[in-house]
Amino acid sequence: MERKIRIGMVGGGKDAFIGGVHRIALRLDGYYELVAGSFSSNFDNSKETGKNLGLAEDRIYKTYQEMAEKESARSDGIDVVSIVTPNHLHVPIAKIFANKGIHIICDKPLALSSEEAIDLKNIVENKKLIFALTHNYTGYPMVRHARSLIQKGDLGSIRVIQAEYPQDWLTTKVEDNGLKQAEWRTDPKRSGEGGCIGDIGTHAFNLIRFITGLEVDELSADIHTFVKGRLLDDNAQIMLRFKKGAKGAIWSSQVAVGNENNLKIRVFGENGGLEWKQEDPNYLYHTKFGHPTQRITRGSNSAGKEANEVTRIPSGHPEGYLEGFANIYSDVCKVLFAQINKQNYEHSNDCYPTIYDGIEGMRFIETVLESSKNNSKWVRFN
Amino acid sequence: MERKIRIGMVGGGKDAFIGGVHRIALRLDGYYELVAGSFSSNFDNSKETGKNLGLAEDRIYKTYQEMAEKESARSDGIDVVSIVTPNHLHVPIAKIFANKGIHIICDKPLALSSEEAIDLKNIVENKKLIFALTHNYTGYPMVRHARSLIQKGDLGSIRVIQAEYPQDWLTTKVEDNGLKQAEWRTDPKRSGEGGCIGDIGTHAFNLIRFITGLEVDELSADIHTFVKGRLLDDNAQIMLRFKKGAKGAIWSSQVAVGNENNLKIRVFGENGGLEWKQEDPNYLYHTKFGHPTQRITRGSNSAGKEANEVTRIPSGHPEGYLEGFANIYSDVCKVLFAQINKQNYEHSNDCYPTIYDGIEGMRFIETVLESSKNNSKWVRFN
Amino acid sequence: MERKIRIGMVGGGKDAFIGGVHRIALRLDGYYELVAGSFSSNFDNSKETGKNLGLAEDRIYKTYQEMAEKESARSDGIDVVSIVTPNHLHVPIAKIFANKGIHIICDKPLALSSEEAIDLKNIVENKKLIFALTHNYTGYPMVRHARSLIQKGDLGSIRVIQAEYPQDWLTTKVEDNGLKQAEWRTDPKRSGEGGCIGDIGTHAFNLIRFITGLEVDELSADIHTFVKGRLLDDNAQIMLRFKKGAKGAIWSSQVAVGNENNLKIRVFGENGGLEWKQEDPNYLYHTKFGHPTQRITRGSNSAGKEANEVTRIPSGHPEGYLEGFANIYSDVCKVLFAQINKQNYEHSNDCYPTIYDGIEGMRFIETVLESSKNNSKWVRFN
Amino acid sequence: MERKIRIGMVGGGKDAFIGGVHRIALRLDGYYELVAGSFSSNFDNSKETGKNLGLAEDRIYKTYQEMAEKESARSDGIDVVSIVTPNHLHVPIAKIFANKGIHIICDKPLALSSEEAIDLKNIVENKKLIFALTHNYTGYPMVRHARSLIQKGDLGSIRVIQAEYPQDWLTTKVEDNGLKQAEWRTDPKRSGEGGCIGDIGTHAFNLIRFITGLEVDELSADIHTFVKGRLLDDNAQIMLRFKKGAKGAIWSSQVAVGNENNLKIRVFGENGGLEWKQEDPNYLYHTKFGHPTQRITRGSNSAGKEANEVTRIPSGHPEGYLEGFANIYSDVCKVLFAQINKQNYEHSNDCYPTIYDGIEGMRFIETVLESSKNNSKWVRFN
Repeated sequence: MERKIRIGMVGGGKDAFIGGVHRIALRLDGYYELVAGSFSSNFDNSKETGKNLGLAEDRIYKTYQEMAEKESARSDGIDVVSIVTPNHLHVPIAKIFANKGIHIICDKPLALSSEEAIDLKNIVENKKLIFALTHNYTGYPMVRHARSLIQKGDLGSIRVIQAEYPQDWLTTKVEDNGLKQAEWRTDPKRSGEGGCIGDIGTHAFNLIRFITGLEVDELSADIHTFVKGRLLDDNAQIMLRFKKGAKGAIWSSQVAVGNENNLKIRVFGENGGLEWKQEDPNYLYHTKFGHPTQRITRGSNSAGKEANEVTRIPSGHPEGYLEGFANIYSDVCKVLFAQINKQNYEHSNDCYPTIYDGIEGMRFIETVLESSKNNSKWVRFN
Repeated sequence: MERKIRIGMVGGGKDAFIGGVHRIALRLDGYYELVAGSFSSNFDNSKETGKNLGLAEDRIYKTYQEMAEKESARSDGIDVVSIVTPNHLHVPIAKIFANKGIHIICDKPLALSSEEAIDLKNIVENKKLIFALTHNYTGYPMVRHARSLIQKGDLGSIRVIQAEYPQDWLTTKVEDNGLKQAEWRTDPKRSGEGGCIGDIGTHAFNLIRFITGLEVDELSADIHTFVKGRLLDDNAQIMLRFKKGAKGAIWSSQVAVGNENNLKIRVFGENGGLEWKQEDPNYLYHTKFGHPTQRITRGSNSAGKEANEVTRIPSGHPEGYLEGFANIYSDVCKVLFAQINKQNYEHSNDCYPTIYDGIEGMRFIETVLESSKNNSKWVRFN
Repeated sequence: MERKIRIGMVGGGKDAFIGGVHRIALRLDGYYELVAGSFSSNFDNSKETGKNLGLAEDRIYKTYQEMAEKESARSDGIDVVSIVTPNHLHVPIAKIFANKGIHIICDKPLALSSEEAIDLKNIVENKKLIFALTHNYTGYPMVRHARSLIQKGDLGSIRVIQAEYPQDWLTTKVEDNGLKQAEWRTDPKRSGEGGCIGDIGTHAFNLIRFITGLEVDELSADIHTFVKGRLLDDNAQIMLRFKKGAKGAIWSSQVAVGNENNLKIRVFGENGGLEWKQEDPNYLYHTKFGHPTQRITRGSNSAGKEANEVTRIPSGHPEGYLEGFANIYSDVCKVLFAQINKQNYEHSNDCYPTIYDGIEGMRFIETVLESSKNNSKWVRFN
Repeated sequence: MERKIRIGMVGGGKDAFIGGVHRIALRLDGYYELVAGSFSSNFDNSKETGKNLGLAEDRIYKTYQEMAEKESARSDGIDVVSIVTPNHLHVPIAKIFANKGIHIICDKPLALSSEEAIDLKNIVENKKLIFALTHNYTGYPMVRHARSLIQKGDLGSIRVIQAEYPQDWLTTKVEDNGLKQAEWRTDPKRSGEGGCIGDIGTHAFNLIRFITGLEVDELSADIHTFVKGRLLDDNAQIMLRFKKGAKGAIWSSQVAVGNENNLKIRVFGENGGLEWKQEDPNYLYHTKFGHPTQRITRGSNSAGKEANEVTRIPSGHPEGYLEGFANIYSDVCKVLFAQINKQNYEHSNDCYPTIYDGIEGMRFIETVLESSKNNSKWVRFN
């Protein structure tokens, strides 16, 4: 690694959700360095956010226009911008950075209309820019393995594709109770014309295309708004006909009580079937016709090259393993910060294991060995 | 955040596993800055590792002794050292850094003997240092919720605790085939006297103590080595009697075919029972006696404060969500690096979604709306 | 019980599947006595079947017409007839027995057309007969509990109903390979115009009606035949609009590789959601909005009166428990038959536990007690 | 089938549990005819039970001694007796019938001591009788498949066997609240010296022997009574050493809150591993070392001959399928009985599908076909 990639961010101020996710994602592998940002239309929020992230003061910008202008003028300016605002701002912001020749990583859905999206595409093509849209589910190792199995022909010709994406967090009219995430997602001005269709239906749609490589030929849809007074759809039934003859369906809902984020895709071909579920993402279920279903695990020998390229830890360690580790590190950090700032620190949880736990662990091993060497006699601990 | 915490690392060079995990963990929340390291007894390996991590050349050290000496002398020296070597080096390294007043995060198990561990403890106490042992399973949100339920008395007096930690990767004698991870783990000189007991049994033991707060009173063990010629145990049965009267068992094995990393704990009290499984870590199953089992999910309203303090993303998004996002970012980075280095880049996977996918997404929304507005007539997708 | 109900059967000869199921069902609770039958259009098959079932020779009939005639003339004639033929014969047979005043239990789907079905209905009404159609999934205890929860209003107004019934046994053209079950099911003359829609789609449809009490207002369907040369549909997508405003979908398929008989229904209302899956039938998952999902188990206190009325064994004993017991009994019977017939009997499986196993069990208890009384010392088992 | 096997029953009167299970089991395949019984020490209870079962009055006996005497004297006397009393009566009853040359099916555990059991064994051997002990879990198809896989050597030499059988119904002192099932099971006089060890631990033990064919060499046990005042153990930890070198453990408990009847067995050999769980009995999980875990389903091609011999219905139809069917039949019967007895019948559930449901089903098929033929236009239902 010659140097880290310099990245800036638009959106993602205090109270935002997806901005924080993007920041963790860019830190995880250590390739990027976040050096600039315009995190909120409220400059105070933006300054506080930037300061907490350790940014230089002069690279926290009042507007994204200013940010594009100044960063593109610096010799050490950002290579790429991450756009994590509500939907309606994606394209206006992207155009400005694109015109300055800055690469773009942008949250989904891309735009308010395909017309607007195509405008942007033309700039991106002219400027030969990298443009990544964070349909994040395509980043899962077992999704990539599913795709490679289909590409290799393991399923034969695809016949049926069933995708569903039910949630339940919009079961009641939470957009009236100050829940910011619900407010803009149910507001046509900020979300576009699609409600649950745009927010999560597009994920299901993208995942179908990514995994199967098939394009939709025609569709028949029935969308509906169940919660009275809501301005956008909160449930959608869609039947799909694909080019090359496959059939399928998408169901997405935000009023399906008992579902948190239950994205699931099933693909059936002449010779085999696949099932992947976002809430249990380390497994891909693969059935060859006439044989028992196999559970292929991320990180195992049975997962292919495409999955292994994006796998950081061994099979049997769900990817939350990294977050568990990070929690220990961050617990420690809070104590360290307190020391540096000469503050008393009361960690309500007091959770990270210490040297005392280490000593207990040693005693455990020693006591086990002593008991086992003595034909399992009961041995008193310590 | 006034400033980031400066951290150094000992161990974790090329081919090591856990060092990379620790580095991701320290990057995740953006609190730490890795500034120094002695990653391998092979200095070339160490230099290459350090350079790839973007370290200044003069802070990549030949020996950990030198590192402790020089870093403690700098005004911007490391606040904390992360020790990720094989087990036998944990204490010797920790002592040197501890004597220099540097805080310590150390991989488990702590030492080769409790005697050695107590020596270290004395230094740590005298120097008033922070010492964290990465029993990482204590970092899971639902483990912390389990602990808090028991602390609050929801289970009543604890009666039975069943923990198990089966794996299968040592089913054959892979330590003879050059698998570095297996080599040192089955070598008494580097691992200590415990084989599967030290490597994974201690995790189960620590997790019991962490969740229940109970201490073992006496134990009866039967350990065994199934693979011929192996020098340490690869299977262990342990019966436990706890102070205050609870009973329990630990089974750990590295020859249990079909198990990847199947750590599981069940706790039963007078009034309720809990079950948590590391391979499905976002759920805690809680049964109040006489009522249906409840599935409590990380990030939901039903998870308590202790879990939410260490939760980054909402319920229904397994923590691998972050890695999925990171994969998109890192995919993009590889293309960016190639551009910076003016290399041609062939990404075999070509995986991150682009603006073209964004346009398709827009068309999807628009086509769905058109169909639905026309009583679900089939609309051609173009 | 004054006396057993006398029942006759039409269909269900050698090689038939569903007839045997009906016979087990009628024996299970001991209420019925099978006394007459016309099991096949082939009289030899019929005679052999009847004899094996222990029927009197004069009550095994060549034709169902003769059977209806003679049974209705006897003072000890059948109370009820069970019709288990291919679909196209259901109505012709039922009419004849109905006209003789005999009650009817009939396999599904009822008829080849609704016209034919209504004809039969008129006779049934005129004769005041009992007519039961074996949509067997309505007989599951947890299905009845689901229905009662909805009837009591626990879910509030119903919004969304998703049902699916995928199988994979018609993935290839097995009807050409002599598989009798596939032959008549894919033959419009014997099955009617619906293929997978008639065979399994009607189950999903009936289950929706049974559980929710809602009636379909209109539907939009896309059915398809994937296997070349097959005469009836093998995959169906259906969008549903219900009276009172609920929306839903049915997907049924017989080419979904990896699915054996995967009938599943999910119902979502304003206040709660339910999920039931035929392949895991002892559990009903119930989520009250904003609370953790509860797993309600058949036979437990949490299952209501409606479920308990049709529950034979306690919670935690899946209903296969009865078959396991029956297997032991029938294993023994085979030996007994051999003795009665003075034949040598070689049971390849030799499976039922004997008195020797009983003695081992006693020793187990005694050895456990001896070890435990001696502080868990190892005790030799002899 | 020349004739049905004539069977009698001792025990199983009103309020008994296991007697009813045995009666269903003997009816299921139609091989047996229940003709005699002494169902309770209370003759009124016995008479009522026998009458409800349709027995001739003169074959309902006041004592089992009388029953053995008279049945053995009849030319049409019972071939076999089923003994379903509390444990302490098994041997005394069995001896009497054995001495009369009557075959025996007996519930488990066999006796109060191995001494008593061996006495009985001697009679059984002398008389050359069939004696079956209903360790019912050996009757499950996938248990038999597990056994055959091990017999064929698919797992190689067995190393580790983990069995567990947790329940929670004795978490509180229900034996004091008039629960008959709990009363005799916690009474040493009627149950013998083993509490949970005898009641369920013996099942786990028997299952290990049945599946693996291995015999225990020595064991180390720690049993305990958690509920104050209870006279027998309610929790047991047992470590096992098998002949030929395998190791293992049994945990059985009746105070493990959240467990209904959670019998589970795992077997690990040099080359493979197996897992079977009683609460999900239609699946056997089989892992060949280094390959993905396979889910083998009862009734599928992947289940072997030994499983298929005791399988009545196809894969994907859990065995509760038969009970579902039986529920429909028995629902109908209740109406028929009412008619015969000229009583009004109010079925609170009113559950079995009728001809009206059949007509709806026809309309469903017809409406689906009409919609699909018209390019999925919405079609109004009827």
